[in-house]
Amino acid sequence: MNRAILLISCQDRKGITAAVTGFIAVNKGNIIHADQHIDEESNTFFMRVEWSLDGFVIGKDKIAAAIEDLAQEFQMAWDLSVSDAPMRVAIFVGKRLHCLYDLLYRYKAGQLACVIPLIISNHPDAAPLAADFKIKFREFAMLRENKPDMEQLQVSILSEEKINCLVLARYQQVLSPTFVNLYKNRIINIHHSFLPAFAGKNPYRQAYQKGVKLIGATSHYVTETLDEGPIIEQDTVRISHRDSINDLMRKGEDLEKGVLSRALRWHLEKKILCYANKTVVFD
Amino acid sequence: MNRAILLISCQDRKGITAAVTGFIAVNKGNIIHADQHIDEESNTFFMRVEWSLDGFVIGKDKIAAAIEDLAQEFQMAWDLSVSDAPMRVAIFVGKRLHCLYDLLYRYKAGQLACVIPLIISNHPDAAPLAADFKIKFREFAMLRENKPDMEQLQVSILSEEKINCLVLARYQQVLSPTFVNLYKNRIINIHHSFLPAFAGKNPYRQAYQKGVKLIGATSHYVTETLDEGPIIEQDTVRISHRDSINDLMRKGEDLEKGVLSRALRWHLEKKILCYANKTVVFD
Amino acid sequence: MNRAILLISCQDRKGITAAVTGFIAVNKGNIIHADQHIDEESNTFFMRVEWSLDGFVIGKDKIAAAIEDLAQEFQMAWDLSVSDAPMRVAIFVGKRLHCLYDLLYRYKAGQLACVIPLIISNHPDAAPLAADFKIKFREFAMLRENKPDMEQLQVSILSEEKINCLVLARYQQVLSPTFVNLYKNRIINIHHSFLPAFAGKNPYRQAYQKGVKLIGATSHYVTETLDEGPIIEQDTVRISHRDSINDLMRKGEDLEKGVLSRALRWHLEKKILCYANKTVVFD
Amino acid sequence: MNRAILLISCQDRKGITAAVTGFIAVNKGNIIHADQHIDEESNTFFMRVEWSLDGFVIGKDKIAAAIEDLAQEFQMAWDLSVSDAPMRVAIFVGKRLHCLYDLLYRYKAGQLACVIPLIISNHPDAAPLAADFKIKFREFAMLRENKPDMEQLQVSILSEEKINCLVLARYQQVLSPTFVNLYKNRIINIHHSFLPAFAGKNPYRQAYQKGVKLIGATSHYVTETLDEGPIIEQDTVRISHRDSINDLMRKGEDLEKGVLSRALRWHLEKKILCYANKTVVFD
Repeated sequence: MNRAILLISCQDRKGITAAVTGFIAVNKGNIIHADQHIDEESNTFFMRVEWSLDGFVIGKDKIAAAIEDLAQEFQMAWDLSVSDAPMRVAIFVGKRLHCLYDLLYRYKAGQLACVIPLIISNHPDAAPLAADFKIKFREFAMLRENKPDMEQLQVSILSEEKINCLVLARYQQVLSPTFVNLYKNRIINIHHSFLPAFAGKNPYRQAYQKGVKLIGATSHYVTETLDEGPIIEQDTVRISHRDSINDLMRKGEDLEKGVLSRALRWHLEKKILCYANKTVVFD
Repeated sequence: MNRAILLISCQDRKGITAAVTGFIAVNKGNIIHADQHIDEESNTFFMRVEWSLDGFVIGKDKIAAAIEDLAQEFQMAWDLSVSDAPMRVAIFVGKRLHCLYDLLYRYKAGQLACVIPLIISNHPDAAPLAADFKIKFREFAMLRENKPDMEQLQVSILSEEKINCLVLARYQQVLSPTFVNLYKNRIINIHHSFLPAFAGKNPYRQAYQKGVKLIGATSHYVTETLDEGPIIEQDTVRISHRDSINDLMRKGEDLEKGVLSRALRWHLEKKILCYANKTVVFD
Repeated sequence: MNRAILLISCQDRKGITAAVTGFIAVNKGNIIHADQHIDEESNTFFMRVEWSLDGFVIGKDKIAAAIEDLAQEFQMAWDLSVSDAPMRVAIFVGKRLHCLYDLLYRYKAGQLACVIPLIISNHPDAAPLAADFKIKFREFAMLRENKPDMEQLQVSILSEEKINCLVLARYQQVLSPTFVNLYKNRIINIHHSFLPAFAGKNPYRQAYQKGVKLIGATSHYVTETLDEGPIIEQDTVRISHRDSINDLMRKGEDLEKGVLSRALRWHLEKKILCYANKTVVFD
Repeated sequence: MNRAILLISCQDRKGITAAVTGFIAVNKGNIIHADQHIDEESNTFFMRVEWSLDGFVIGKDKIAAAIEDLAQEFQMAWDLSVSDAPMRVAIFVGKRLHCLYDLLYRYKAGQLACVIPLIISNHPDAAPLAADFKIKFREFAMLRENKPDMEQLQVSILSEEKINCLVLARYQQVLSPTFVNLYKNRIINIHHSFLPAFAGKNPYRQAYQKGVKLIGATSHYVTETLDEGPIIEQDTVRISHRDSINDLMRKGEDLEKGVLSRALRWHLEKKILCYANKTVVFD
């Protein structure tokens, strides 16, 4: 697919959509999807536009410069993708492997437009699965005292592998602020509750003890504050008094898999814009 | 709200979005919502654009003519709304009043941007409810032999009341093709099943006998063929062997109310485009 | 329906189900529904059994005494209903009337097996609706300084009307512990969030600001601690960045109506058992 | 788990529940779950009771004979499980492997109480996956002219492997009546639509062309008539005009996996009773 995707946000005023779509049309691009949104509370304008580069008169390497002019006029924040190269994703995982297993299946089935060259864990459990899928597996035995060193090692291997997106697929370690800030809005976590309910540890146990009638799962970008980053996707499923904590875990697994894989897919397709610790998802 | 809404469809080619949004921008309109869709199978382009008329340099009564030029260039089918006048809706109902009751509540609560001056039935049951809401009620005792006459009477009162949208809120009569064609894509029906399953009579009984594990409701535009028009909205709810047919009816009622009211709201907000006996709903 | 319903809970041990069902069989009752549950964490046994009194050899007024013997053997907590008289329900409401309106429709449609002789509010808004349904309406202008007096007046009118179940259908007042304890496990509230998320004031605004992708509603028994009583029923609905706070309120209304009416129906049908600040709902 | 499970159905009359639970109690069994249902239309009684055999005074091999007495009194149809041996399941699969992959994950994760010694296909695609899980894989090249022979071969290998449950996990072959009748109520199929809508071939294409707003999946026991057997489980998911047929297939996959795995789990846990071409699922 020879396509460009542009995400923009700025204060709303007249003529933004026309300026952007006009720029594309004048240069012989054909718009495939265009979606926009205005947050009326903050008067912010958001847009995602995707167009075919077949016949587009501006060369790939010069589109960004051309957009810069437009951006200055409207004081836009913008993000342009013209690369043919898919994102490179590293999956971080702990002992529970259902999300990893699910992501790898979808990856193999061609549902995720990315390359996954690396799986990182603080346990050895995922090694055989990584081997089945012929993906490099690296184990880091994280301890409180060696965490900064271990993270530095992780960063260097991520850099070596040219990773530009991290997925925490039930990785039961808290990342340091330093680490998080290296990958702002590029680390996707799955939390096994309907946030903001049941943040932190053992959310299924918390849900069981509270006696809720639905359980949930939440995928969000990771920020410095645990379980508080912009929410990308959530879902819930009905439970009853008959369900033990094990049943909650089993039912929740299916939620987690769906929620995390949708969040990752939207991220890979450049459908997500963050603002005010929330997301706009142009689905 | 001083706004214009334009719905268009045409064969896809380069520059449509830019031409439409450029037309609005050049004439000093501010786009509030713009949404488009391309059906890749048929290469058809669909668009809904809504803009503020504050400061728009073309007078309300001249916008249509201005759009006509644009439309010819791209051979668009189009529908423009600039009227401040809300649509005028007539509700047709039988003996079961839950949908009527629900619509009237939403109407009174300001959730439906329309005027409802008329309720029509072939039974007297809805008369007190119509009186509570101070809406004109007209009863027509439909018999096989008098149906053409009755429909003619109905058409004349609909015309008198300047009705431009009909809602069949569990009206258990089949409209004649003549009648239907007078209000093409303007008659909204609720059918108490997940169509195409269980079309026709007694869908809850059909569902009970089939032993399905979910029941549904479907709102669609009425065409000449019973229960076959373009589907606007559907929903389902879980049932179990414990549910009697009465339980199915009770659970289904809630579905019907939600599905019909959403369909009507989208219709009133000009969010629906029909093509190929299907709908695009720009929600 | 000439039926008895028995709810029991006790520590689990062998033979409870057999003892209870045997007692009914020996006395010529026919079991219509029997459901039981064991909470494995606390080893607690719960049972709901409903049987026909046609041909039952123990007179209605003597069943309780007969059960007492059984109860002592197993140290059961139990609750027996043999009365033909439906529960008498008072609805408390504030300015937002959607739940009241919905409950009254269901009441009129025969979906709620109770009598509703009284509506109480701290605002006059519900008076016309009460009048339409020919239900006594009493307004109490609650102020911080007169609250104990007002509550005392409310209690006396509730007592006069022989009310045994209270529904807070968006009643924006906090009941005093004294009041709550008079009606333990007999006051049903609707909270417009997925508890425990967004307890307290303005839950839709809280949800909007947090950027959640689903909103919820929760019905629970009222206890001394605000929004913390045993949860009876919950539900969620999907929202997106396109939804304003008003849209959240509109979508949430439908959730609230469904959740509250199901909770009330289960309560009226004696399907709910409370334990450990949770509920078993024998649906 | 040293447990017995008894499923019974018979015409309803007084004392059935008491007789069954009394039989268990008198013989020192402890009931862990008991659930019953009366179909009021046909006056049929259904029961599932599960009890601990610790301390049960009747030997495992004599329980059936003891129940036979009870059964004759009430003219019950009944099915008793006292075996410690898990069911032996064969999975039949075609070219699309998502359901197979999902079942094998759940199997490995201990969510399915069975042994899966055999995978059968008419294509070679599943061979590597079978090898990963160390499960015997047998390919049968089915042609119209060799079908009876191939089925006979399949039956002999099923018999050899002592298979007592067959799962058609997107096996795109129609089984002959002869074959089906060998495994009555023991062959579970997944159909990728909300039956009875879109039976037969290409249900996602049928759904796309109809323009439905939800797609579904249905798991059912296989009978002689294609896609007409007793429905065990169904689910639906929302789609929109934006979804291509490929999106429908991707979204539908997740439905299929959930629906099929739930149906199989209930079957393995002896929670399903068939009657009148419907199912009672004691979940």
